[in-house]
Amino acid sequence: MTSIITIMTDFGMKDGFVGVMKGVIWGIAPEARIADLTHLISPQNIREGGVVLDRSAPYFPAGTIHVVVVDPGVGTARRPIAAQVGEQRYVGPDNGTLTMFLARAQRENWKVQIVELNQPRYWRDEISTSFHGRDIFAPVAAHLAAGVPLSAVGSPMSDPALLPLSAPERTAAGLRGEIIHIDHFGNIGANIKREDVAPLGSVSVRACGHDVPGLSNTFGDKPPGELIAFINSIGELAIAVVNGNAGQRLGAKVGDTVEVIKLQSDSVNG
Amino acid sequence: MTSIITIMTDFGMKDGFVGVMKGVIWGIAPEARIADLTHLISPQNIREGGVVLDRSAPYFPAGTIHVVVVDPGVGTARRPIAAQVGEQRYVGPDNGTLTMFLARAQRENWKVQIVELNQPRYWRDEISTSFHGRDIFAPVAAHLAAGVPLSAVGSPMSDPALLPLSAPERTAAGLRGEIIHIDHFGNIGANIKREDVAPLGSVSVRACGHDVPGLSNTFGDKPPGELIAFINSIGELAIAVVNGNAGQRLGAKVGDTVEVIKLQSDSVNG
Amino acid sequence: MTSIITIMTDFGMKDGFVGVMKGVIWGIAPEARIADLTHLISPQNIREGGVVLDRSAPYFPAGTIHVVVVDPGVGTARRPIAAQVGEQRYVGPDNGTLTMFLARAQRENWKVQIVELNQPRYWRDEISTSFHGRDIFAPVAAHLAAGVPLSAVGSPMSDPALLPLSAPERTAAGLRGEIIHIDHFGNIGANIKREDVAPLGSVSVRACGHDVPGLSNTFGDKPPGELIAFINSIGELAIAVVNGNAGQRLGAKVGDTVEVIKLQSDSVNG
Repeated sequence: MTSIITIMTDFGMKDGFVGVMKGVIWGIAPEARIADLTHLISPQNIREGGVVLDRSAPYFPAGTIHVVVVDPGVGTARRPIAAQVGEQRYVGPDNGTLTMFLARAQRENWKVQIVELNQPRYWRDEISTSFHGRDIFAPVAAHLAAGVPLSAVGSPMSDPALLPLSAPERTAAGLRGEIIHIDHFGNIGANIKREDVAPLGSVSVRACGHDVPGLSNTFGDKPPGELIAFINSIGELAIAVVNGNAGQRLGAKVGDTVEVIKLQSDSVNG
Repeated sequence: MTSIITIMTDFGMKDGFVGVMKGVIWGIAPEARIADLTHLISPQNIREGGVVLDRSAPYFPAGTIHVVVVDPGVGTARRPIAAQVGEQRYVGPDNGTLTMFLARAQRENWKVQIVELNQPRYWRDEISTSFHGRDIFAPVAAHLAAGVPLSAVGSPMSDPALLPLSAPERTAAGLRGEIIHIDHFGNIGANIKREDVAPLGSVSVRACGHDVPGLSNTFGDKPPGELIAFINSIGELAIAVVNGNAGQRLGAKVGDTVEVIKLQSDSVNG
Repeated sequence: MTSIITIMTDFGMKDGFVGVMKGVIWGIAPEARIADLTHLISPQNIREGGVVLDRSAPYFPAGTIHVVVVDPGVGTARRPIAAQVGEQRYVGPDNGTLTMFLARAQRENWKVQIVELNQPRYWRDEISTSFHGRDIFAPVAAHLAAGVPLSAVGSPMSDPALLPLSAPERTAAGLRGEIIHIDHFGNIGANIKREDVAPLGSVSVRACGHDVPGLSNTFGDKPPGELIAFINSIGELAIAVVNGNAGQRLGAKVGDTVEVIKLQSDSVNG
């Protein structure tokens, strides 16, 4: 069966660019099922694309091909690549978008193979300087979906571009990390994982000048309008306002500090 | 043939959440055709989701499964449910989203069956407290689409959560109802139906301090910029501005009063 | 194999209207693959819809059916039509949306056939006055996709509605044209094509009071923040800001003048 293809871009939704990529894909792989991941990545924001890829890709069936086109370097010397990362596949520019998903592969001990796309017989006949999504990445993804092996579309490489990734640090009080994503609801996700927090026992969470005591199990644990900290659906430490928007309430932005404070719950008295 | 699945949420379109649901569906029902209804329901606005479901579902082929995730109570005791409503199927939280579509079923004398989802073998292995769209509703919809019967995914129940629904009232002058939807064009729909208005003969429509005389047949009956009242494509009394935005012009919002005034067209003189 | 169908509208994405069209299509042609082109055409902006159709349709496989519903005249005497334009097909109102794509057909010497839709057996049973996308265009597209020939759905006609199209003019200095599209990135496209510019040799481009010297090959040719002129991915003269938004920087709007100034690069001295 032809593989699933997902498409993520910073193209927005008003110009037909994504539709054109689907036309190119179906011209090569007529049976491909295609899902949009999002086309609202902020223009040229490679890091944001990488975060969304990493949190979405693991939920797709094995063999799914994720085409990611957040590509400020289109037309320059940055390489076009394809990769097998565990059971998932990636097609897009070599600009760091894969960083977070490669870090996951390392943690999970997944096998990784990366190739530089250099076989124009799998591309469109004419290659523009400004729309490789249409001319290179969509056709390569379609050929992969139709059964062409990764080794046929490019040559092995082992030095993908990587973005700096900050891990959370241990501090005297507990942990210090940072905000890595704020979603449509204003829910804030940090680069601190369930397994980082669990050993600390009872904690308080601090971000943007606000203290949130304790970890809630879910939104319903506190009344509407209250700030809560919890472990979100992908295992990250998160901050939300019940039925509200924490991003706006806290004036939070990606990169802001998030601290986890271990509480002295076993102290003899106050 | 695998059934069609539609997805409606308040997730927005920037985070990849809906794409992830599609990945989960295709992992279980690889042949499912999936259509987005909308992901721009206002956050936590169950009533808005219910209105859009009711006006969209009847146009899908028999057997279509509508997954609706507007779910402020995710992770709390609100039940996950699935339902057969006439020829259409629903999967989502039991929070009132089905109210308007159940009211239609009653008017149309359709058969209704509702089950509480309580068979985790049709769910993902791990259930988060904040993303049941991914962990419960998408997999159940996929299993239903692939042929699992409703009776297998849950136990019969007969007390679904219902929102209060206001019917239009007869008044001395005619009818009084309210605005239930304002669409992308600013066209205003009321909870007053063609069959409510027809017996009144000639009418005038009043909303938000504006009087609109007579019912137009279509937009082209008056010049651009004019207010018109008409019966819209789903049989509701509606107010529009020809090639303009009535919602903005009238400062209208959902819940505002709409009155239909029967004209004394057969009176002897003025 | 059932043909591909694309859908483009000015319906926005919040009301479920496009989903309903997909439901109607799959009721008739269950195997149809459907791609959204865009639903963010400005309300009633026929010209914008025509530009996006023309720049998107050529990249789809032969036989694709493009349903375009930007239809301020819905319910009036404007005709519903379907057309074969080269290898692509169109279904929608006869209001000028096809103008740019028909001009391309003429340049490319493609065969064109147009029919007025007048066979209600290929429509829904009930036809509203305000949603022909659902009641006429979606079902006709589905029947075409399933194999019904163009000649069966309507009667031949040869006088489609056309919008005025302005061609670039030769001037003493070079060329004068106008902005026809500004995309999500703020990249500006003009009605001046690669082959218009090529004979002029070295040029400078002027728009909205800004002069841009020379044509760049791609975004990477200049540093971030710089204005560049280049030939875009569909062969148009374009203006962009590297990693920025030229539309905003220049305060540009569709219809604004763009001039190409031939440089006296071979003059003896300054």
